[in-house]
Amino acid sequence: MWDYKTPGIPDEYFERTEKVPITKEEIRTIQLSKARLKPGFTVFDVGCGSGSISIEAAIQIEKTGKVIAIDYDENAVELTKKNIEKFGISNISVIHGNAKEKILELGKADSIFIGGTGGDTKEIVQLAQDKLNPGGRIVIGIILIETLYSVLEILDNLNFDSIDITQVTISKSKKTTKGTMMLARNPVTIISATKT
Amino acid sequence: MWDYKTPGIPDEYFERTEKVPITKEEIRTIQLSKARLKPGFTVFDVGCGSGSISIEAAIQIEKTGKVIAIDYDENAVELTKKNIEKFGISNISVIHGNAKEKILELGKADSIFIGGTGGDTKEIVQLAQDKLNPGGRIVIGIILIETLYSVLEILDNLNFDSIDITQVTISKSKKTTKGTMMLARNPVTIISATKT
Amino acid sequence: MWDYKTPGIPDEYFERTEKVPITKEEIRTIQLSKARLKPGFTVFDVGCGSGSISIEAAIQIEKTGKVIAIDYDENAVELTKKNIEKFGISNISVIHGNAKEKILELGKADSIFIGGTGGDTKEIVQLAQDKLNPGGRIVIGIILIETLYSVLEILDNLNFDSIDITQVTISKSKKTTKGTMMLARNPVTIISATKT
Amino acid sequence: MWDYKTPGIPDEYFERTEKVPITKEEIRTIQLSKARLKPGFTVFDVGCGSGSISIEAAIQIEKTGKVIAIDYDENAVELTKKNIEKFGISNISVIHGNAKEKILELGKADSIFIGGTGGDTKEIVQLAQDKLNPGGRIVIGIILIETLYSVLEILDNLNFDSIDITQVTISKSKKTTKGTMMLARNPVTIISATKT
Repeated sequence: MWDYKTPGIPDEYFERTEKVPITKEEIRTIQLSKARLKPGFTVFDVGCGSGSISIEAAIQIEKTGKVIAIDYDENAVELTKKNIEKFGISNISVIHGNAKEKILELGKADSIFIGGTGGDTKEIVQLAQDKLNPGGRIVIGIILIETLYSVLEILDNLNFDSIDITQVTISKSKKTTKGTMMLARNPVTIISATKT
Repeated sequence: MWDYKTPGIPDEYFERTEKVPITKEEIRTIQLSKARLKPGFTVFDVGCGSGSISIEAAIQIEKTGKVIAIDYDENAVELTKKNIEKFGISNISVIHGNAKEKILELGKADSIFIGGTGGDTKEIVQLAQDKLNPGGRIVIGIILIETLYSVLEILDNLNFDSIDITQVTISKSKKTTKGTMMLARNPVTIISATKT
Repeated sequence: MWDYKTPGIPDEYFERTEKVPITKEEIRTIQLSKARLKPGFTVFDVGCGSGSISIEAAIQIEKTGKVIAIDYDENAVELTKKNIEKFGISNISVIHGNAKEKILELGKADSIFIGGTGGDTKEIVQLAQDKLNPGGRIVIGIILIETLYSVLEILDNLNFDSIDITQVTISKSKKTTKGTMMLARNPVTIISATKT
Repeated sequence: MWDYKTPGIPDEYFERTEKVPITKEEIRTIQLSKARLKPGFTVFDVGCGSGSISIEAAIQIEKTGKVIAIDYDENAVELTKKNIEKFGISNISVIHGNAKEKILELGKADSIFIGGTGGDTKEIVQLAQDKLNPGGRIVIGIILIETLYSVLEILDNLNFDSIDITQVTISKSKKTTKGTMMLARNPVTIISATKT
């Protein structure tokens, strides 16, 4: 269904519902690039939402790799499963539950995505650090000011380097009868770093 | 109702309807500052929409000044009149009709605002040039790429200097149960210049 | 030198030095509008920098009003004085020193601007609250993520309502031989509120 | 030197000079994703600049694919060659010359990148259309308003569908002694489309 080498599956290829926000394709593409994936990698996707990042990561790491997608929202878990089926992906496991507990039961990871707007981002970043192999990458998508601050605050005290903080604002064109206007989407801040 | 010296009446103070877009207060404030108003000025507001710019300008130019507000949309004309009444303003005349015709019937102006997303912006800028007194200011709010280009193209051939092109992107905070997110509004480009 | 009713003195009208950053004119205009000034007001400008906000406020509040400008940076104090002289303003007092101490020695204010990127913004907001008359406005210009968070955190526990958080991103056009490009300026977040 | 599956080579991995602007990594990542590359593809990179897009594309299309990089600026050609050597890439040919002439001498392409800020973008888009295989993708990076307009205007009359217009604004964090500020980069508009 998507046989290109690069991430960037258009949003409209995914099953979507009003209840679960989807990471927009350009944001997703940047997040995937910051994760620096390789075939065979083990990847966690914490707060997987629609599953769009899990699916693009699963394609990049090929069948020898494995994605573990976690969400506490049943709607997200269901939507992720639907999308996995739609794209015919076999190397994603979906876990329904609280990330702070579920992540403890998992093994090591080579890359960890943290999304969602939950208030626990800070604690999850700490847990992610413990699970990441040295050289592994963490990629955090943030929309709340409080989350941004709390992650910034904690990051310096954890074992990360090559810390990158990038705010991305996307506008999309819309044709009207009178011309082309740009519709702004909400800014997302992407923090990425390498486990030392 | 608004007895402050500076523009910046909050949007929610105005009557609004779904049919007529309102220039957001921060954009309006910048547009008013670019117009460099003085008591006694004659001001045109072409494509007056909700009337918010007309009203703020009418306050700044005081009762010795006069605003002429034009819109081809009956809903806009009605809404502008409602807002004039709400704010108790006496120095605004509202004209319903095609700006390209109506502007020809008017006298000279000291400042001219051009808004709306109509396809005629280019021609209206040309007409506005003829109506502006030397030293008078034109302020154009633009959201369409085609309008931006056509105004840029024409401006160099008209009698304007001190041309300023400023794109403004506003985000507003929204409190959610989990924290504060920023909601982006669509970017507006404000072109202003002085008639030579 | 500037005899218009509205704020929006172009940046190039001010004396500037490399050592002292100037609040850009569009940001300044929005900050002034959020302050809701009236003739006769007493205004504090904490972290006055180039003095551009003090000068525009001094014009708005007219000769019956008074601005007190404070900065701990000697270069800023000197530059503010130069600009006061340049614009022929008589109702601004400039204080050199630590805002946290100096503000304690002042009387009540009707509007308080807080600028700069100092680490003490949180404490100064608290002091400003004590100095503001009921109905008075506080306007804070923020560029650091940590400052934004600390102000957000404190604001709910202070006596403020009508809290408004607006991020403003300005781009300015630049003509090249091949066409017009937009140069982005760094985003500024403006928090304003009314003392209850 | 870069053995990850996803694009997103950090800017600092490339040789750079002051004379040749480099497409920033997040912008480059989005451009690559819009190109939808596959192993074996033939890719043109018109206005290759530093060669960063050519190199990332060359990795994605693997050794069975081929990138042809063109630039009229000798400095860009030299820099691209340096980067090709640095990354040990063997499937890029670099052509020095006027794209409008050089592209005529080439065969068909599966994906075409058009960059630079040259005034000829409109004509090059037309030539690119003729060279693209059906289903092939064009990806245009634009920073000038005039170029944006001229491409918009022409696109509807060419054989393209799935037209996507995305403006991307990136801000990068900078640590100061007092906290973290965001530095804005200039917005880039990326237009992509599929040859019908």
